[in-house]
Amino acid sequence: MGLREEIGEQPAVVARLLHEGRPAIEAIGAALREHEIDTVFIAARGTSDHAAIYAQYVFGVRHALPVALAAPSVLSRYAVEPRFGRTLVIGISQSGASPDIVGLVAAARRQGAPTVAITNVPASALGEAAEHTIDLAAGAERSIAATKTYTSELTAIALLSAAMRGSLAVDAPDLERLPDALTAVLATEAAAARAAADLAKKPSCVILGRGFEYATAREWALKLKELAYVVADPYSIADFQHGPIALVEPSSPVLLVAPSGVGSDDVAGLLPRLTEYGADLLVVSDRSDLLGVGRHALPLPQGIAEWLMPIVAIVPGQLYALHAALARGADPDAPRHLAKVTATR
Amino acid sequence: MGLREEIGEQPAVVARLLHEGRPAIEAIGAALREHEIDTVFIAARGTSDHAAIYAQYVFGVRHALPVALAAPSVLSRYAVEPRFGRTLVIGISQSGASPDIVGLVAAARRQGAPTVAITNVPASALGEAAEHTIDLAAGAERSIAATKTYTSELTAIALLSAAMRGSLAVDAPDLERLPDALTAVLATEAAAARAAADLAKKPSCVILGRGFEYATAREWALKLKELAYVVADPYSIADFQHGPIALVEPSSPVLLVAPSGVGSDDVAGLLPRLTEYGADLLVVSDRSDLLGVGRHALPLPQGIAEWLMPIVAIVPGQLYALHAALARGADPDAPRHLAKVTATR
Repeated sequence: MGLREEIGEQPAVVARLLHEGRPAIEAIGAALREHEIDTVFIAARGTSDHAAIYAQYVFGVRHALPVALAAPSVLSRYAVEPRFGRTLVIGISQSGASPDIVGLVAAARRQGAPTVAITNVPASALGEAAEHTIDLAAGAERSIAATKTYTSELTAIALLSAAMRGSLAVDAPDLERLPDALTAVLATEAAAARAAADLAKKPSCVILGRGFEYATAREWALKLKELAYVVADPYSIADFQHGPIALVEPSSPVLLVAPSGVGSDDVAGLLPRLTEYGADLLVVSDRSDLLGVGRHALPLPQGIAEWLMPIVAIVPGQLYALHAALARGADPDAPRHLAKVTATR
Repeated sequence: MGLREEIGEQPAVVARLLHEGRPAIEAIGAALREHEIDTVFIAARGTSDHAAIYAQYVFGVRHALPVALAAPSVLSRYAVEPRFGRTLVIGISQSGASPDIVGLVAAARRQGAPTVAITNVPASALGEAAEHTIDLAAGAERSIAATKTYTSELTAIALLSAAMRGSLAVDAPDLERLPDALTAVLATEAAAARAAADLAKKPSCVILGRGFEYATAREWALKLKELAYVVADPYSIADFQHGPIALVEPSSPVLLVAPSGVGSDDVAGLLPRLTEYGADLLVVSDRSDLLGVGRHALPLPQGIAEWLMPIVAIVPGQLYALHAALARGADPDAPRHLAKVTATR
């Protein structure tokens, strides 16, 4: 089973989590509603850290909760245990094996804070440490580059948010659209391959998103680094204008994740400047007015709620990174220097 | 007044803040000790966001508080006001003019949360919005690339932490060492220029730090992007091993910020792999055993407390970025595409 097959599994993996995972997540949501929660604190590394960024927007926009992304070394290196008051603590890890993430969740549980693990290995140290565990049930992920565990982590976060707000039935119609949308977006592979063969000739690029899609920009950049060895620099549109926009010169590849919603208006506002500076643009969007402006376009399916679109919008990025690797002569099934489980402390 | 002069002003600016700023910050610390604070929430953009990352470690390690770095668009774009329970909300902005940062501080104050502004323009919208304002008093910063306002933001955070813990007198001996240490580190300019002329021939590089020095890695990378148009990719040592280490190939420049403390042990542990992969290393450290291992070394002064070293350790990075710009034919006093105040919303 190679990377390309695992990318292709995502509609089935997400559908399974939506249906088989739902009762357990509804029970967790009900248990969490018994707590008075002031803050959400999330510990994660690598790809799972991008799921944490997605969760920062989900819990921020849908629950009006401040969300702290852990600096795990505060505990693992400086030996200081954060005081978790009325804080929901979530650990996210495909393998459930990273000691620094496990340590934070275990500390929070000892303090009596509600804890949730999101992992593909519920029998792992992380799964054991948390009071509640969401099993991604994505099947073994053998590729070093995470793909189906990322989209299933995002789906688990979306389900948890729906369950914490009350009845999951409210969001179910939107959630149910995800498997078909994932199937539809997999059909962009040929266009993603063409764009990658063209733009990934350059050894670096910028990737921009905003709001819910900032996580997509971050995760897409990581895939390009680990698979294709392209120095991909991800930014929110706002932070990009505070300095890094100076990087753009004629023929600089700029990849934009801009599905409908507030983020895409900001992208639209920046397009004249990027065009003036001569950037080579790739636009990922469901907005036909934006798909026409760049050198390359990868269409997203219509009718997906803005807060769920990151589960779909990363897929063209995964396919682009896969084909960038192939175009640059790298083996996407054996990226250099990396092992599947990185046990940082 | 150009960038180089503003870099050189930093000993005097930090000394002024330490002495003239101290009474006001002590009063703020006393006022904050009247509040029961569960969490710290910090809003900032660009260079000030790297001061916020420093604050994440300061409040995490010295106060055992969970720290949330704002996703400002949750309010500015999705129109959802976070519910601030027992949260200290800090806004950091050189100009005090960014509407998204002002909006979050204003919302927190309306909700009755304690608020602090850290700014070089106390009469700004941010200064007016917060209950308490720390005036950096760094003098006008005319260069587009922030230098002296960054080190003074960090100094303000350190003073605030000292004041919040009780008597500032406890930390005063450590703080008092900063101006001389800044003067000493400015003397590395010739070595920084040599390293930059060599390593910044490459259009990209990786910058690594950990713990307190993660902020330094982030800020150094931003200076290289905006001044020298080098795609500099900053990582904590831990996250770097979760994927981006695949970027390293023979002659890849890897810049390491590794002063004494827990972070430098992790750097030391990674050195054999980086050497095996053929990276060209630049080490910034006060550890003589680490200074000898790379192609270039920039020494830091001895005897600075680990939690205060980021105020000193960024200076070789500023000098490196300045000279990288000159070596690459860019004008550090007029970086392309940028204005001094970026009013993101």
